[in-house]
Order: sequence, then structure tokens, then C-alpha cells
Amino acid sequence: MSKVRMGMVGGGEGAFIGAIHRMAAALDQEIELVCGAFSSNTERSRRSGASLGLPDHRVYTSYELMMTAESELPKEDRMQFVSIVTPNHLHFPVAVAALKSGFHVLSDKPATFSLSEVLTMRKIIEKCDLIYGLTHPYIGYPMVQEAQHRVSMGAFGRIRKILVDYNQGWLANDSIERESKQAAWRLDPSKAGISSCMGDIGVHAANLAEFVSGLRITELCADLTSFVPGRELDDDGSVLLRFDGGAKGVLQASQICTGEENALSLRVYGEKGGLEWSQQNPNSLRLKWPDRPDEIVRTAADYLSDSAAAATRTPAGHPEGYLEAFANLYLAFATRVRVREFGEGTDTALFNCPGITEAVRGMAFIELAVTASQSDIKWHRFESH
Amino acid sequence: MSKVRMGMVGGGEGAFIGAIHRMAAALDQEIELVCGAFSSNTERSRRSGASLGLPDHRVYTSYELMMTAESELPKEDRMQFVSIVTPNHLHFPVAVAALKSGFHVLSDKPATFSLSEVLTMRKIIEKCDLIYGLTHPYIGYPMVQEAQHRVSMGAFGRIRKILVDYNQGWLANDSIERESKQAAWRLDPSKAGISSCMGDIGVHAANLAEFVSGLRITELCADLTSFVPGRELDDDGSVLLRFDGGAKGVLQASQICTGEENALSLRVYGEKGGLEWSQQNPNSLRLKWPDRPDEIVRTAADYLSDSAAAATRTPAGHPEGYLEAFANLYLAFATRVRVREFGEGTDTALFNCPGITEAVRGMAFIELAVTASQSDIKWHRFESH
Amino acid sequence: MSKVRMGMVGGGEGAFIGAIHRMAAALDQEIELVCGAFSSNTERSRRSGASLGLPDHRVYTSYELMMTAESELPKEDRMQFVSIVTPNHLHFPVAVAALKSGFHVLSDKPATFSLSEVLTMRKIIEKCDLIYGLTHPYIGYPMVQEAQHRVSMGAFGRIRKILVDYNQGWLANDSIERESKQAAWRLDPSKAGISSCMGDIGVHAANLAEFVSGLRITELCADLTSFVPGRELDDDGSVLLRFDGGAKGVLQASQICTGEENALSLRVYGEKGGLEWSQQNPNSLRLKWPDRPDEIVRTAADYLSDSAAAATRTPAGHPEGYLEAFANLYLAFATRVRVREFGEGTDTALFNCPGITEAVRGMAFIELAVTASQSDIKWHRFESH
Amino acid sequence: MSKVRMGMVGGGEGAFIGAIHRMAAALDQEIELVCGAFSSNTERSRRSGASLGLPDHRVYTSYELMMTAESELPKEDRMQFVSIVTPNHLHFPVAVAALKSGFHVLSDKPATFSLSEVLTMRKIIEKCDLIYGLTHPYIGYPMVQEAQHRVSMGAFGRIRKILVDYNQGWLANDSIERESKQAAWRLDPSKAGISSCMGDIGVHAANLAEFVSGLRITELCADLTSFVPGRELDDDGSVLLRFDGGAKGVLQASQICTGEENALSLRVYGEKGGLEWSQQNPNSLRLKWPDRPDEIVRTAADYLSDSAAAATRTPAGHPEGYLEAFANLYLAFATRVRVREFGEGTDTALFNCPGITEAVRGMAFIELAVTASQSDIKWHRFESH
Repeated sequence: MSKVRMGMVGGGEGAFIGAIHRMAAALDQEIELVCGAFSSNTERSRRSGASLGLPDHRVYTSYELMMTAESELPKEDRMQFVSIVTPNHLHFPVAVAALKSGFHVLSDKPATFSLSEVLTMRKIIEKCDLIYGLTHPYIGYPMVQEAQHRVSMGAFGRIRKILVDYNQGWLANDSIERESKQAAWRLDPSKAGISSCMGDIGVHAANLAEFVSGLRITELCADLTSFVPGRELDDDGSVLLRFDGGAKGVLQASQICTGEENALSLRVYGEKGGLEWSQQNPNSLRLKWPDRPDEIVRTAADYLSDSAAAATRTPAGHPEGYLEAFANLYLAFATRVRVREFGEGTDTALFNCPGITEAVRGMAFIELAVTASQSDIKWHRFESH
Repeated sequence: MSKVRMGMVGGGEGAFIGAIHRMAAALDQEIELVCGAFSSNTERSRRSGASLGLPDHRVYTSYELMMTAESELPKEDRMQFVSIVTPNHLHFPVAVAALKSGFHVLSDKPATFSLSEVLTMRKIIEKCDLIYGLTHPYIGYPMVQEAQHRVSMGAFGRIRKILVDYNQGWLANDSIERESKQAAWRLDPSKAGISSCMGDIGVHAANLAEFVSGLRITELCADLTSFVPGRELDDDGSVLLRFDGGAKGVLQASQICTGEENALSLRVYGEKGGLEWSQQNPNSLRLKWPDRPDEIVRTAADYLSDSAAAATRTPAGHPEGYLEAFANLYLAFATRVRVREFGEGTDTALFNCPGITEAVRGMAFIELAVTASQSDIKWHRFESH
Repeated sequence: MSKVRMGMVGGGEGAFIGAIHRMAAALDQEIELVCGAFSSNTERSRRSGASLGLPDHRVYTSYELMMTAESELPKEDRMQFVSIVTPNHLHFPVAVAALKSGFHVLSDKPATFSLSEVLTMRKIIEKCDLIYGLTHPYIGYPMVQEAQHRVSMGAFGRIRKILVDYNQGWLANDSIERESKQAAWRLDPSKAGISSCMGDIGVHAANLAEFVSGLRITELCADLTSFVPGRELDDDGSVLLRFDGGAKGVLQASQICTGEENALSLRVYGEKGGLEWSQQNPNSLRLKWPDRPDEIVRTAADYLSDSAAAATRTPAGHPEGYLEAFANLYLAFATRVRVREFGEGTDTALFNCPGITEAVRGMAFIELAVTASQSDIKWHRFESH
Repeated sequence: MSKVRMGMVGGGEGAFIGAIHRMAAALDQEIELVCGAFSSNTERSRRSGASLGLPDHRVYTSYELMMTAESELPKEDRMQFVSIVTPNHLHFPVAVAALKSGFHVLSDKPATFSLSEVLTMRKIIEKCDLIYGLTHPYIGYPMVQEAQHRVSMGAFGRIRKILVDYNQGWLANDSIERESKQAAWRLDPSKAGISSCMGDIGVHAANLAEFVSGLRITELCADLTSFVPGRELDDDGSVLLRFDGGAKGVLQASQICTGEENALSLRVYGEKGGLEWSQQNPNSLRLKWPDRPDEIVRTAADYLSDSAAAATRTPAGHPEGYLEAFANLYLAFATRVRVREFGEGTDTALFNCPGITEAVRGMAFIELAVTASQSDIKWHRFESH
């Protein structure tokens, strides 16, 4: 089996998410990192590439140079897709440059800096025959796949209520933006966009709720807050949701819930039953029933759906974690790239990496949440774009 | 020590909450049930009284008769307080009749059928020298007392965010109102008032949030729903909250979260730390810290506050439950009655039973949540009454 | 319904278990405390009786006086059963005195000071027509009843493995016997008998294992330890178990597991499935299956067995605790006494309070565990007595 | 940074543990799989190698051929260490062949087929200057490292009690050995050795207990069982333990605890406090204290020891799992190989992969548990070898 060749933009020394992406890509030994533009700082990019074992000539000092140089390499050597792990404001230009140079793109979220950018990007994607993927890693967990499957099979009946929480505490500290580069750019409107909390984590929560329920948010009412004085962007938000089909819900996200780590959880209730899943305890999925005992569905059990089974690497009782979930998106994406580039395997992966549709909905969600929060009008329609 | 003498209105055969109140009153052996008007049905009231071991002449067929007859008994025999455990629409007339006959009152919640009733009742209470208590039993849990204590001592710094959930599933079934007398009256506007979900459980959640945080709700935005077709009252609601001092929050309550039992939980986050408590696992209180391990505070531990210790009956590791929490309110109320009536003990109980202040705020909350839900205006002020 | 009349021996000021017994007896309002010999100290006994609202003439300064005086009261006034809540060395003489005076007996465990005493007591019981009950309160939990029911119905197939743990930490402190009266007598061979850990808690664990599994211990191998220097009795023990039918197990009990509160838990595994229950989280019972999701059976659910339902007082999600479990034994015992004394109700209670059979097995277990621990021989037969 | 070059013996199509080892080796991108003898079946070995992207000439049909051929490759190309992932009976001959050919060895456990083999192997290792590692992956979890660190720092005082459980249910099914190749060899004395349960999982439990406590087992008393008829090897065992310094404990391991997945857990109690860790919930470590709230130590928290921090890849709240723990052993081993072979980095890794010392103790434990179980003598000394 041929390895799919990846180039990376961003993720140099001191970055957090770049190393996560590289481990996720490496785990299944189906993807090979062949080049990178890890930093706009020449020395930092070179050092990063060297520590990753890349030859000097495949380490670039700008993404533009990387696109050009790789395009000129023999087809069997050049990178096949670009992994984008920069701060938000660079997602769009890098993705566009990659697509225009003929490379598939796998991007960290949020897809772009603004809704208008993502709509522009969608047009570009529609015109080229390239694959675009977006890393919402939480849907890569086997139990999230199982939850989606069971909802879609009608196990819980018509869905009525969806509660999604995503609470962190790391930005509760009012000096964190001076201490941490990771915090600083997320709170800087010139790099993060119009939102910190909704853009960084609320968008994951919205994606998770829509993915598992199979429903689309149609209206929302939001109250975003910057709790720490001096911040320009929200560090907390509560959003009332209405979904198509009449379901309702609440999305609660925060970066100032002191003491919380990465507490993403989802509860979905239908006419016949409910489910609960928590990212910090990801290998269990609790099913709730009105007339029989709750059930604890577990990663790697024999009775799982095909999509959940496909997302699993270890036997039952050997916990899988965030990197494995992330790797599942890389695997789903790489499988599609392999089919296209090598003609190996088939494109009918058991589940898909989120793509441009989720990218557009994510940016629309962020912008609508901010708009709604600033408004005295209660409900705001989530328009289709 | 003299036993405090209690009469009961409501709670005859087939009722649920009456038996709970009687067990709560009996547990500590400081209260004696001496009379009752258990049902407006003569036979049912008599049978109920007999099964409770009451002599026939202390079992009444109406609350009015009970007030009159007990008033005429010698002071040392007659009941000293009335426990009201009827459906909501009778809370007010029974309480008023009792107060006017000189009896202290301990009432199930919500205090009355409407805000205007409770305001009238407050005037009556202010004019007489009688004790009024309201059973929000959840604040009787030791860990809730401990949470309140630690917040009040500043352990978590200024409070920023309060999340309170109270989800049940028992009304998800669309035939429950025909099968269960308990469900029927709660969904009947002539007996329950203007709300089912907010009136039955939302009001507990609001009380818990205010009690633990020490903050008052100042504004809210609500989305209440009747998910089951044909219902006149809400069976679900999500409410965005704003508190004095700048804290914000979400109150989520539902009777249609299929598979949930009685899932009341509270999370409070301040600048320095947070806390989490769940009523279904009531003997643990999780404290969350940004820079050291979370702590699991436990009922009956040596290090607890006086109020939490006072709410505890068994050694650590011997779980206490709902009846013990409920009994704590009876004990707090009976202690005050004892001081007043017997001159025994002191009125400085380590914690208090909720009273008319909480009664007024509860009714105001219910009415404002309903009003706000029906409005297109986003925020509604929670006026002081 | 007539109330069953109880006298109490022990449980005066400063005692722990006496107050527990009184609350357990009071909860259901079917038992009335009518007299007591709370302490051998005259003043302490009187003060205890007064604080409980007993008239002076029903408060005795010795159990012998109580038996005599109560026997001389009119039948309709005198106590009907004696609750024994003294340290261990008095269980036997008090029980024998009560039985010989014609009173039923409900005794705290262990039944007596020694195996020979309990065998003597059994002979006495066999000759009189009186009811003897023993408070192993943990079997009063609804989920323990449910576990027993499901095992007995064959839900798990033939049982192979039984693991029971009962770990406490309160005696880890090497000065506790000087600080706490409760600790002092439990570690004093003249009051506790030949064992502290096995006699105080190991015996509960053995009872629980046999009750739920329906199997009898046939052989054991023990390693008991006095970890704290200077102690004459064991404060810890691990016991390998063999049961009839070929099942095996481990009983682990300790009073020096620092930081543990009252961590009694049971795991039972059969050919088809397993179960797990923990006393500190008593309202859930986890069922484990090889080929489908684990199930969480819950107190007060609709689908429970009759015996579990009969052990439940509150609706699902309103936690029940240790006092309710304890009250279930009082209720089971009082129901039998009522039938015998008043001819009310029937003797076919949905479950029974443990009696003389469990009393004998308990004492035999304690003595065999101590003997086996002192022996170099590996296996010791658990003889029938 | 140069990648360390790995060859693999075993782990072809249909194997379980081979794929685990490859993912663990790949995750950190510091190890490169360069060759393998994946199966004694020529075709299966070739197909396995091809699917892993290896060139044909580096895929061998026997481990002997691999040793010879690789030795003849230029030093900068040949493998540097051999990963052994065969059934137990081949561990020794493959390891010896590798060592004799000058290759470092990382072996799955148990180290060899018998104690005498591992003693022979130790002599060989002592004579050559090669690195030997043994994969007990559970000590690679950050919270296990943290537990070990805190015990070693005296946080819990002198250790008194150690309870280790390792319960699985997959062999409860009496036809599993006919259905699963994995089960078949583990229950076959010619491939597994003298024990199934103790050899496959009990040895992990013993290693974990000794690693965290820093104590050595000095005596044991065992009761092993073959619960499923027809089996020659134990599928369950309970072992009483005594440690140096006076601590005692219980090791409970089973493959017939129906419904259990991979339930390895450890509890350690000292004079001042205790700890509890469960492999199925690996990112939390509960510390238990007599006089203050229990603490929940968490993977990736800021306050962790250096060794725990070094074992962590993702931020707090992003769960790590079994593969990450396993990868930590690969990383620890590869770091030492890199220093030796490339002179890069230093040999002072923050923690070490288990080696020949643990290999010898593991084999001694397995043999002693079997011997002790067959004996009527209670205690058996765990001799130093």
C-alpha cells in the first residue's frame, strides 16, 4: 500500500496543534510527511523540519514557496495534500494557494477568518476536482459515530432536545494572553476573527450537535460575554437553539469555567430514549430508556455499527483517546486521497471527514452567534448559504 | 424534649408527596403527626388517617373543619403547624386558613397558584407572628449547604457563570396524563397554574442556583415548549439568566428528557475555581481548581462547615439521600416552632428552611419565565416584589 | 394500623449506632420506642431517655430491670421487642434475657461474642416461639435485593467468582483508640471478641456475598493483620473463599485503608454475565454482559423485582441511602412482629430480616477466619453448625 | 533527528498485538519499521510486509533469515532493534538469535516460556552490550508514573496494603478457544507456557503493583482455577501477597469474569493516604486522604511530576489511551537505542522501559503462582533470582 504524501503549513516549534496533527497522521502509517512551511521565521521553520527528519530542501520558509516548489517536483515525489495548522487568519489564503496549485487540503477549524471567505473558498473548490477536509476531531470518536448511527436508525424516535456543552477554564486567568502564545492569538481579532469562544470551541459543539442529531440549526438566540476585562472577543457564550423538525436545544461554551479542562459533552433526547456522551470519558456512550435499564455502549464492543467499528484500533477495555479520534479524520481523508491519486482502495470509506459543507455552516454559526448576541431581537434565523 | 405537633392537609391514599413529607417529619422523632385532612373524599381521608394510626376524631374531611376543630382543642393538644401537601391550587387557601387560625405553615412548593396570591399571603404573614416555611428540599442536602458556605466564603472568587439543569423524562410519554394522577394535575392549568415544567421543577432549579451562589437573577430570556401535542402547559424550558454582580447562566429544565430520572445538577464557576453537584449522586461535591487537583468533598467528612455538618446523620460512607435532605427542612422548621411554642432550644438553627422570601421569588420566576417565553423581546427584568 | 412497641438496650448519649437504629425504626412510622436501658450509667440513661421524650418510668438503668418491669406492664402497653445496640459482649446476655422474658429480639451484629454463645442462643430460640432478627443493613438496599433476585433467577448462569471488598480507613490512625470510644471498644478483646476487622465489617461482607449469590462458603484461607503496632486484634484481612457449587472468591476487608470511608462493594460473575454494586453509590446496580451493553439497573425503576420494589420509598432519581436500607430491616422485622402480636397483615413479607441462621454463620465465619489466619495450613473447612 | 530502525518478528495478518506495537512505534515518528518476519507462512509474511509498505527484500520468512540478512546489510541501513510480538514460546529463541546477531531487543511479555529460559537470557544479555526491553505497557500511562512518583516521595507514608485486580471476561465463553486464534494459543501449554491467566495478565498486575509501590513481593499464597472444563491452564487466580517492609496485598486476575473488558486497577494504601487508578479510566488518579478531600490528579495537569509530564502528548482534557501508554515504552526504549547507535540525545530518559530485571521477576512470579496453587502449604517464598 502506498503512503499518501503530506505537506504541512504551520505547526513549527512552540505550536500546539501542529504536533497533534502530525501524530494523528503518523499513527496508522498510511501518511508520510514529506515537506513543510512550519513558520514564517526562516530559522524556526528549518529547525522544525530538521527535528522532524525532513531534508532541508523540503523545508520552506513560506507557504507560497512551498506550493511553487512542490508543484515543480515529479508527480511521484511531490506532496499530495496540505495540512493547514496555522492560526485562523491564514487558513483561507493557504487553502486557496494549495487548491490553486492542485493540492488537496485538510484544514484545521474554523475553516476561514470569515463567512465571506469560506463562501469564496467553496466556489474555488466547486471548480476544481480536489478534496477539502476540515478537522472537527470529536466526530472521529467511535462512540460519536455510534451515537450518530443509532439516532439515524431511529433508536430514540423523533429528537426533541439537544444539549451540548463545551466548557474550558484556561482563559479564566486574566493574564493568560500575556503568558501563552496559544491564548494570545485566539483572543486577537486580527488573527482569530470575530469570536474567541464561539470560533474556537462553540463551532465544534455546533458541529457535534448537528452531526449526531442529523438535524440543522434553524434559529438561535445568543448571549456572548467577555468576562475578563479588556478582552475584545467573547470568552463565554450561551446559545438557545432551534432545529429543523421542531427540536430545541442549548449550546453552552466557555473558556472561563475555571477548573474545567476540555469538557465537551452532548445529550440528545428523543421520544423513545436519550443518549449522553462526554469527550473526557470518550469510550462510553450512555443510552437512556424510559422503561428498561440505561445501557453503557463501549468502544470496541462486538455489537457496534460498522462506522464505530471502523473508528476503533484496540480491543475493548484498552482506552482510545483524542489522538485516535483525530487520526480517524486523517485516515478518512487520506483514504479518499489515495483512491484519487493512486487508484488504490475505494472511496466508500465507512465514514467521512467533514468537508466544505461543514466549513460553511461553521463560519455561518460563528457569525450568527456574534450578531445575535449583539441584538435585542430574540431569535435569529440560521440562513442556508 | 417535647415533640412538635403537626397536622397535614392533602397526602391521602395514592398521593406521592404526602408520604415523603411524613417520612421526613418522622425521621428525627421530633415531630408528631396529630391530625390531618388527607382528602376531600371523606372515606379516603378516614382510611388514610386510620392507616397512619390517628384517632378518628383527629381525621378531618376538609381543611376548614380541621382549622376550626383544632383551634378549639386545648393548647397543649392541638396541632402547632400545618403541613400542606395538596396540588398547587390549594396551597394558598389552606395556608391562609391556617395562618388565620394561628397555625404555623410548612408548604410544598410552588408557594401558591400565582404571584398575586403569594404577595397577598406575604401581607398576611407580615401581620401575624407565625412561621412560614417552603419545602425546597434540595437545599437540605449537606453538600448543597457546603457549596453555599464555600461560595459565601469566597473560595471561588467572584462568581461568573452558573449552570443549573433539572431534567426528567417521566412526561415524555404522551399518555402519562391519562395514566397517572400525579401527571394529570401537574399538566392541568386549573390545578398546577400557568406552568408545568417551570412550576414543578424549574422553580427548584432557580432556588438552588440563587441559594448556592448567593446571587439574585436580574434578567432572563426564556424558550418554553409543550413538546407533547395537546398539552396546555410547558413540559420543557431553557432559560438564559443574568444575575446581579454580572454573573450569567443557563437554567435548563425538562419533563420530556426521556430516560432521565430526576437529574438536577448545578455548576458554579468563579474567578478562582468552580464546583459541581448532582442530586442523583448527592454525597459528593466536586471542587475544580485551575492549578491543583480537583477535590471531592464528601458528606460527613470531618472538614465540613457547621451547616453541612448539621445536615448530616450518618458517618462518612453511609450514603444519605432525598428523605434526609427533606427531613433537614422539617428539622429546621420544627426547631423554630419549638422555640416559639415551647421555649426550648434556640432559634439560631445552623440553617434555615426557605420561607416567604423564597416563596415570592419562586412565583415571580415562574410567571416571568412564561411571560418571557411568549415574548419576542429578548431580555425581561426580574423585578423585586 | 397498630404501631409495634420497641424497647432499646444501649445507644445512650455518645453512642453512634443507637441513633441510627432509632431513625431506622422511626422512618416508616410503624414502630414506637416505648422504653429503654440506654446506659449502665444511671444519669446517662435518664438523660438519653428524656431527650427521646420517654417518660421517666420507662427509662431503666439496666437491661435486667427493663425486662422485669416491662413484663409486669399490661400486655397492651409493654414493649414487644428489644433492639440491642450495645457493644458486642452484651449482645448475648441481653438477647437471652429478653427471650426468656418473652420479648422478640432485633440485635446489632455480630450476634454474640463467640460462636459457642450463638449456638446456645439458637437452642433458646428454638424452644421459644419468638422472633430473632439480626441487622445486616446492607441487604436492605433495593439494589442488593434486586441483585439477589436476578442471581436466583439464573440471569448470570452458574456463579463462578465472587469478589467482596469492605475497606475503611478510620482505624489507620494509630491514636484513634484513645480518641474515640467507638474505636476503643472495637479494638478491645474484652468487648469486641476475637476480631476487630472481621467481626465488625468482614462479617457484613461475608453475609452480603452469601445473600446475593445464594451460595455458602465451604472453605477459606485467611491472612489477618494488625497493622497498627500495639493492637491485639486484626485491623485488616484478606480471605480466599470457596463456595459450594465450585465458585471461588476473595473477601478483602480493612480498617486501615487510609482515606476510604465505608467502601463495601460486591462483584459476582457467572457463566452468562456479571454484576457490580457499591454501597457508597447504592442506587445503581451494574449488570455486565459479554455480548451486549452493560446495563445500569436503578432503584425505583418500574422494571424491578417485587422485593426491590418493596424496599423503595421514593421515585426514581430521588436517592435512597443507608438509613432507608436499615429501615427496611426494621420494617421486615416489625411486620413479622405485628402479625404475631396483633394479627394484622401477613407474615409473607417480600423479604426477610436476617435471623438466627445468619447469626450462626456470621460467628462461625469470624472464628474460622481468625483460626485460619493463625494456621500454616492453607484451607480450612467452614463447618455447618 | 535520525529515526531508529526497527525489525519485527511476528505480528502478521490476523495477529492482534503486532498492529498495536506498530502503531505505538509510529506515533512519535522517531522509529521506522524497516523489515520483518511476520509469519512462518511465507505468503502471509510477504502479504503482511507489502501491506506495510516494506520492500520485498526486507520481508523475511523466518526470524533466522532476518537476523542473518540484516546483519549483512550496511550498518546505516540494517535494523537496529527487533520487536518480538510472537506467541510466548518463541520469545526466547527470537530474542537470543537477535542478541547473538548484535541487535537490541524489545519483547512482548511474558519474557520467555519459562523461568529457566529467562535466566539463560539474562546471562547472554549480561555478556553483550545490548539493550533489552519488555513491554509492560500499563506503566507507560502518565497517571501510573505519577502514582509511582508520589509513592516514592512518601506522600502516603509507609505502604501497608496493595490491591491489584486484572479481570477480563473474554475467555468465559467455553468455545472461544475454537473460535479465536488469540484465545487458542493462550490456552495451549505448548505455546503459552504453564499458565494462561497468570502468564497473560497476572504478570502485568504483579509488575504494576511492584512498580508503583516500589516494593517487592516476598511471599505468596495462590488459588488458581480452570473454570471452563477441558482447559489445561488456569483461566482465573487469586493470590495473597506479602511485600518487603511488611505490606500485604491481594492480586486478583481472571479471564472468566464475564462482561469485564480489561479491568486492571490498583489501590495502594499507606499510613498517611491512599491512591486508586483504573486502566479503563486512565487519565484520572484518585488520591485519598483521611482528613481532607480526595483529590483527582489528571493527565496533562500543570502540577505533575516530570515523569508523568514526559509521558503526556495532549493538553488536559484531551484523553490519552492505551496506544499512547504503549508508545511511551517504545519511546523510552528508542531513546536509549538512539543514544547508543547515533550518539544523539542522552540516556537519561525521564523514565525507563522495563528490562531484564522485570523479565526475570515476571517469570518467577508466574512459576511461583502455579506452584503455590498446587500446594497445600500456605505461604511460598518469592526467591530472588
